[in-house]
Amino acid sequence: MEPKNDIEIAQSAILANISELASNLHLNENDWEPYGKYIAKLNTESSSNKQGNLILVTAINPTPAGEGKTTVTIGLGQALNRINKNAVVTLREPSLGPTLGMKGGATGGGYSQVLPMEDINLHFTGDIHAITTANNALAALLDNHIHHGNELNIDPRRVIINRVVDLNDRSLRNVTIGLGGPFNGIPREDKFDITVASEIMAILCLATSLEDLKDRLSKMVIAYNYQKEPITVRDLNVEGALTVLLKKALHPNLVQTIENTPAIVHGGPFANIAHGCCSLIATKTALGLSDYVITEAGFGADLGAEKFFNLKCRIGELKPRAVVIVATTRALKMHGGVGKTELLEEDITAVEKGIENLEKHIQTIQTFGLPVIVAINRFATDSKAELEYIIKWCEKKEVDVSLTEVWEHGGKGGIDLAEKVVNICEEKESDFSFLYSNDETIEEKVASIAKKVYGAKDVVFSKKARNQINLFQQYKWDKLPVCIAKTQYSLSDDPSLLGRPKDFSITINELKPSIGAGFIVALAGNILTMPGLPKNPAALNIDIDDNGNTKGLF
Amino acid sequence: MEPKNDIEIAQSAILANISELASNLHLNENDWEPYGKYIAKLNTESSSNKQGNLILVTAINPTPAGEGKTTVTIGLGQALNRINKNAVVTLREPSLGPTLGMKGGATGGGYSQVLPMEDINLHFTGDIHAITTANNALAALLDNHIHHGNELNIDPRRVIINRVVDLNDRSLRNVTIGLGGPFNGIPREDKFDITVASEIMAILCLATSLEDLKDRLSKMVIAYNYQKEPITVRDLNVEGALTVLLKKALHPNLVQTIENTPAIVHGGPFANIAHGCCSLIATKTALGLSDYVITEAGFGADLGAEKFFNLKCRIGELKPRAVVIVATTRALKMHGGVGKTELLEEDITAVEKGIENLEKHIQTIQTFGLPVIVAINRFATDSKAELEYIIKWCEKKEVDVSLTEVWEHGGKGGIDLAEKVVNICEEKESDFSFLYSNDETIEEKVASIAKKVYGAKDVVFSKKARNQINLFQQYKWDKLPVCIAKTQYSLSDDPSLLGRPKDFSITINELKPSIGAGFIVALAGNILTMPGLPKNPAALNIDIDDNGNTKGLF
Repeated sequence: MEPKNDIEIAQSAILANISELASNLHLNENDWEPYGKYIAKLNTESSSNKQGNLILVTAINPTPAGEGKTTVTIGLGQALNRINKNAVVTLREPSLGPTLGMKGGATGGGYSQVLPMEDINLHFTGDIHAITTANNALAALLDNHIHHGNELNIDPRRVIINRVVDLNDRSLRNVTIGLGGPFNGIPREDKFDITVASEIMAILCLATSLEDLKDRLSKMVIAYNYQKEPITVRDLNVEGALTVLLKKALHPNLVQTIENTPAIVHGGPFANIAHGCCSLIATKTALGLSDYVITEAGFGADLGAEKFFNLKCRIGELKPRAVVIVATTRALKMHGGVGKTELLEEDITAVEKGIENLEKHIQTIQTFGLPVIVAINRFATDSKAELEYIIKWCEKKEVDVSLTEVWEHGGKGGIDLAEKVVNICEEKESDFSFLYSNDETIEEKVASIAKKVYGAKDVVFSKKARNQINLFQQYKWDKLPVCIAKTQYSLSDDPSLLGRPKDFSITINELKPSIGAGFIVALAGNILTMPGLPKNPAALNIDIDDNGNTKGLF
Repeated sequence: MEPKNDIEIAQSAILANISELASNLHLNENDWEPYGKYIAKLNTESSSNKQGNLILVTAINPTPAGEGKTTVTIGLGQALNRINKNAVVTLREPSLGPTLGMKGGATGGGYSQVLPMEDINLHFTGDIHAITTANNALAALLDNHIHHGNELNIDPRRVIINRVVDLNDRSLRNVTIGLGGPFNGIPREDKFDITVASEIMAILCLATSLEDLKDRLSKMVIAYNYQKEPITVRDLNVEGALTVLLKKALHPNLVQTIENTPAIVHGGPFANIAHGCCSLIATKTALGLSDYVITEAGFGADLGAEKFFNLKCRIGELKPRAVVIVATTRALKMHGGVGKTELLEEDITAVEKGIENLEKHIQTIQTFGLPVIVAINRFATDSKAELEYIIKWCEKKEVDVSLTEVWEHGGKGGIDLAEKVVNICEEKESDFSFLYSNDETIEEKVASIAKKVYGAKDVVFSKKARNQINLFQQYKWDKLPVCIAKTQYSLSDDPSLLGRPKDFSITINELKPSIGAGFIVALAGNILTMPGLPKNPAALNIDIDDNGNTKGLF
């Protein structure tokens, strides 16, 4: 018999009614609303005094071999509950772009999944659709303002918000709009991004309350006028309407793991041009409801963890307690120079070389003052010698390490990891601090991240970036934290430099204001904010069977 | 004290939990899923043998004075329940375009509303967002096919599906996409429509089951190849993915009126280029659950009722039992030549002249073999003499007539109308028949509607339309019913001809295939499928107050 695939495992799982999950979390009737039998929207930030242990799951730099960070996050949550700890997993919501494209959904895999996987991977509770709508309503209202007399004197060549769709659609990357004569708007160049790359997604994920959401929306810089002065949402007077459009989307979504333990899945910003982790409200709500909150951040620790700490924890006043770094022998071998087709062969030398990537990320986490534990996400094809090498290496470096088998065995496969996490939280000190202070200059903040997190020798700012830094100082935007948009594949800004590159510079070509979200984006290289579809997209395999059951989601 | 506005009335209403509504309808636990405390998705077409009386609410040609068709529909549903009849109201879902633009939401008014009005007018259960996503995924997959080698030999100049947003955004009416070089798609002209104007919306509203939905989606013609042969969704092999994206959206939404009686709100196609009424599944479900189903169709009877009968009733094998035509003295006066600013002055002569519009619609309904009842939707400013004139006129014509005050008094204001509707259903015969047979030619079908419903003397087909008719015969599309897209303001195709124009021709400029929906659209004049925003859109007044309550929706 063929082993079951992810959607088959999900469809054969027995789900608890969401009211049971809510009741286990001691939620009152008014704290949640059902969305179907297995999903709830939580109405409130917990007012409990409880303050659980916040555990971040991050990873080495991603490779085509896959690391399984989400799967380990979910498996760890399941494992903690197995050893009788109250633990909630908090994750990002999947975007339909990758689901219909190449990457598939984002609900974990095997016996470490969040459910109902079909709903979560499709429209879920409509949060991303609400963001799409709010973003495009803002764009329509902006173009409408220009069309009806342009009192704000907006320069149509300097509109900086893009329209969005929650899809991979390369044809919308560069468009011209407003064609067709005087009744059909002002012709101008425009771009569509994928919704999860929008500033509104970042704002929703960093807002601490409905009032704060409205305030952040109002501060969004959307264009410049002919005097090159920034125009905000407040100038357009539409922050109220946008807030109303996002009101329900701000409420975090409660679901369950395949082992019926609680999970909150909410928000999903990009991890390059935004901060790449689930909503602050989701994390805060979870911390008020349980002793352990396991959360993940996008891509490797150089992007995800750094932004989780310097942006999300700063804005949300969160104190993480420990960090799990996920690695696989396959990915370490790729960092050690092995090609994707030769991963099945044992190659200790490649592991030895590739492990430098892991080493750098361990050191980075330690720089933030946090205890680290390495989780090796085991694959059936891993050689014993390779696994032993990694474990010994960690022991020699005095770093906790655990071999996990959560894909195959669910929580049971992560009990050792869970015990080690509990042990760290109970025994080890943590002394969390930010890498930089907001009072530093933009150049200093970028340099801190580039040197201490990426291991760069220096930072080069293009002429354009230097001019923008001057301009941003004038606008008083220079006291915001920075969000570096960089390739996820390398510690450097060159995606081909795997392992632990040395002696490299980081080049910042351009800056972008995300004033509503509350950070300045510094672009190190070209970041695609609208993915394309492959020749044979996943959509071609998605279907319903004769009983109306969905197939082909993964 | 200021009288309350619609949202204030809605916010002070006491809602029943949706489980109470479900239980009153004798639904089993598996027949529905909650979406919050006051909304449910119904999982199933009722398998009951019950076959309630289907009552259509339609209107005279709309004027800027407003007729209140939705309000009367809801009020009649409330009134029937007050006289101890089981009655369900079925309505279209509001689109965010008008809600943020000029027209406002679509949940009735005063004390005849469906609730929760805020949710229904905003994202509701996400049905329209699912349609937006499915439509734009289809467009992305089509452009992706062309980009990756174009095996189907699609002519990029002859793509006939447009992208959509559920917003008013004139800047997207005419765009060019695929700019920016070889990695960014194929440059071509494109258009965005408002979602409710999409064929997928029409398909969802006419599908009888999930399988039928998939079959209709697969038949959609989306482009032509270089040999001018039609290319369908099936050729692209994505009907499965689109069906999965629309799976939940196909389930009708149960809500309640302000008097806690049941209402089903589901689907909302345009009434010019599509058929303009709520989903067939909603209507069928309601008919299985109650003795009286009150439903409405878009615009005046010339568009809404005609399509309800010839398209929806034909496809769904529905037998309507009676028709309510809504009129107001204000609107009749406008049809009689009075300007919008002079409506407060009594003007019997104008009523006498304008009533010809009502007379034509009464005759049309009688042509379909159905009993008619005129509902006068009373305004506080109506003069007694004007109201008496209309009532006497109806009595002279032997047409049932009822003065309703459902805005001000809710169901109580519609009891006389409800009693007359019950009386018709119990006493009067109906002999419903279609205006034409599908076997007739496209020209004959268009002529039937133009002459018997609009009162035109003849139909002129442009050269383009004639060529298309020949082509459509070759493609074997000529046995489908026709859907005429025409101005809603006049019985003719000239919006300035109010009242009952005579001796006019209808000109068909162009045809459009809606093969998935199952009809041929015949365009009489330019129909805007993407509205624009006014200088001061409703969005500017929408906000949250200090307690987080929404204000400014109407």
